[in-house]
Amino acid sequence: MTQKIFDFIRKEQPQTPCLVLDLDVVRERYDALTGALPLAAVHYAVKANPAPEVVSVLRDKGAKFDVASPAEVDLCIGLGITPDRISYGNTIKKARDIRHAFERGIDLFVFDSEAELIKIAQAAPGARVICRILVSNKGADWPLSRKFGCSKEMAFDLLCKARELGLVPTGVTFHVGSQQKNVEAWDSAVELSADLFRQLEAVGIELSTINLGGGLPAKYSEDVSEIGEYAFAVMSSMTRHFGNFLPHMMIEPGRFLVGDAGIIHAEIVLVSKKAYDDDARWVYLDIGRFNGLAETEGEAIKYPIGTDLGSGANDNVPKGPVILAGPSCDSVDILYQETKYQLPLSLKEGDTVQLHAAGAYTTAYSSAGFNGIAPLAAHYI
Amino acid sequence: MTQKIFDFIRKEQPQTPCLVLDLDVVRERYDALTGALPLAAVHYAVKANPAPEVVSVLRDKGAKFDVASPAEVDLCIGLGITPDRISYGNTIKKARDIRHAFERGIDLFVFDSEAELIKIAQAAPGARVICRILVSNKGADWPLSRKFGCSKEMAFDLLCKARELGLVPTGVTFHVGSQQKNVEAWDSAVELSADLFRQLEAVGIELSTINLGGGLPAKYSEDVSEIGEYAFAVMSSMTRHFGNFLPHMMIEPGRFLVGDAGIIHAEIVLVSKKAYDDDARWVYLDIGRFNGLAETEGEAIKYPIGTDLGSGANDNVPKGPVILAGPSCDSVDILYQETKYQLPLSLKEGDTVQLHAAGAYTTAYSSAGFNGIAPLAAHYI
Repeated sequence: MTQKIFDFIRKEQPQTPCLVLDLDVVRERYDALTGALPLAAVHYAVKANPAPEVVSVLRDKGAKFDVASPAEVDLCIGLGITPDRISYGNTIKKARDIRHAFERGIDLFVFDSEAELIKIAQAAPGARVICRILVSNKGADWPLSRKFGCSKEMAFDLLCKARELGLVPTGVTFHVGSQQKNVEAWDSAVELSADLFRQLEAVGIELSTINLGGGLPAKYSEDVSEIGEYAFAVMSSMTRHFGNFLPHMMIEPGRFLVGDAGIIHAEIVLVSKKAYDDDARWVYLDIGRFNGLAETEGEAIKYPIGTDLGSGANDNVPKGPVILAGPSCDSVDILYQETKYQLPLSLKEGDTVQLHAAGAYTTAYSSAGFNGIAPLAAHYI
Repeated sequence: MTQKIFDFIRKEQPQTPCLVLDLDVVRERYDALTGALPLAAVHYAVKANPAPEVVSVLRDKGAKFDVASPAEVDLCIGLGITPDRISYGNTIKKARDIRHAFERGIDLFVFDSEAELIKIAQAAPGARVICRILVSNKGADWPLSRKFGCSKEMAFDLLCKARELGLVPTGVTFHVGSQQKNVEAWDSAVELSADLFRQLEAVGIELSTINLGGGLPAKYSEDVSEIGEYAFAVMSSMTRHFGNFLPHMMIEPGRFLVGDAGIIHAEIVLVSKKAYDDDARWVYLDIGRFNGLAETEGEAIKYPIGTDLGSGANDNVPKGPVILAGPSCDSVDILYQETKYQLPLSLKEGDTVQLHAAGAYTTAYSSAGFNGIAPLAAHYI
């Protein structure tokens, strides 16, 4: 937790649950990433945290943006971001949504199927298109399914077809899986992409761009490598597979830029046992899967949890195992049952807890009012 | 789908995705339930669908209500429901939330732990309390965890303690699991409850109430028994275990009252394959796990899906296997992959689909704006 967040919580005593996000960390992360990967255009994945405060900070740093829907298009345009800085990365778009973006000047679209390509050709004639390919997600905490991307053979045919349809076949993209902890994960995807570049060049199509997608991790419970190591691995792959003539590079971080910038400040509602011989206590928080912690599904994302506002006061107090759950009447609203968190034995209702590295995909997933519980409040400082 | 819903969609052509819910079905379900279980007070579980239109219809039918949060308390009170018709069934409440309800006249609270009981004694002195016990959920599509309820031994001690704390030990409750398809599921829970009644009577505590919880199913893909069969099984259990002197009975249906009343009208955004040798098509809808279909997690709730607005036009057209997914950039936003839905081979983007029995737990879970996608719109007719 940064000093700024610590001071804010101490002084303002904000009502729980809430996200408190230090915008300086976003700026630092952006600088670290552009420093480590100077050749890559950084497109912030707006869906990770669409707060205007976050988007504005990145706008001022010179970032580019990747959007998933008309509302995200309007958010960016409304904040004064010019359309040449916006890519539309969702491969599932209604024709009218493509048109909406194109009419506002956005001309870079991702697709992974013939039907989508035809829609783009009709709704955004002459636009640049990037084809998403299927790659391995080994090593990711939040692995992707086959929902996005197509096979390499299909990608070749579709990029040829893009030209026939009057579009500009521009590049290839992939996603190695969110919260990817293996720095080598990009290598096979870059290799596959370079193959496609060469195959298409042989039929007269010169792609200009490789979009390395997202996947850069935030720091949750486990240690992750520094950004420099990721950048070194990515650039080694790029030169290994593309040689000296590197294509234009894009990268789409979301979690990496905002995850570590925020903490969720929450309150314990209840500590209880279900039976006299239970080992673990149930600790119920005022935040759960439906008001911010959707990514605890399957216990995929493990937020570090503190109980002393980072003061260190609880470092050496006796601790014991807990099952952590949310406040709703829903039985699946359990955060951690298999993952064995240990929290102070003295914890009781009214005490606060801090979930660290919670700036990404928390406010964004929050339900509009499940069980009458409001969406996660947020303070951007 | 009812004629009223059919006519509404045909005439109004509402923008997709949306829930269209026929309030007459809610009325009919309420009448069927009170007809089948005349001894039970029906407390509608507001969390299933907190639309004021639904709550008002049930208010006018004379229903009672079960709430999970201060916002649901305020919703009911604001709609003119007197506090004697409201129970507070969430076992996880902040002290100030208990006080909030008590100050508005609500005096019936559920608990399952000593800490919660003490909170209630302090925040709602003299209130009536019902203890939730752990029971088996075998046979439920959406089984509950150990998140709610305590062991029978603990329940006995806590109900004794309730009296010491100046509260009125009023009864026992349990939940056999949501969308419970086994009509006998209530039997062991009723037996456990009757045991507790007798044990407490032996120490001078006369409980008045058994709260049978929720669990009554809506009609999804599989056939479920008629309400009469459930009622017969429940009443047989009640007389088997309580004899002639039956306690006051409460029941807390949510899904049963509103599930079958609504359909979700959605649009196909994209139909595609990932590779040339894929068997199944991917069908992407404009509704997914994060804007209404949260209960497809683990493919637990299987909504019947139609493609011809109930006209029967597609009854005999050629069909093939599909994987159904939502519109967001999230790879877990897949509805059905293991469950083999078959849809017409001719389906294409822009066609509409209808998800039946979607009146419960759809608008309620909807995210506030994940990926910039608006919460599920709804029309109550």
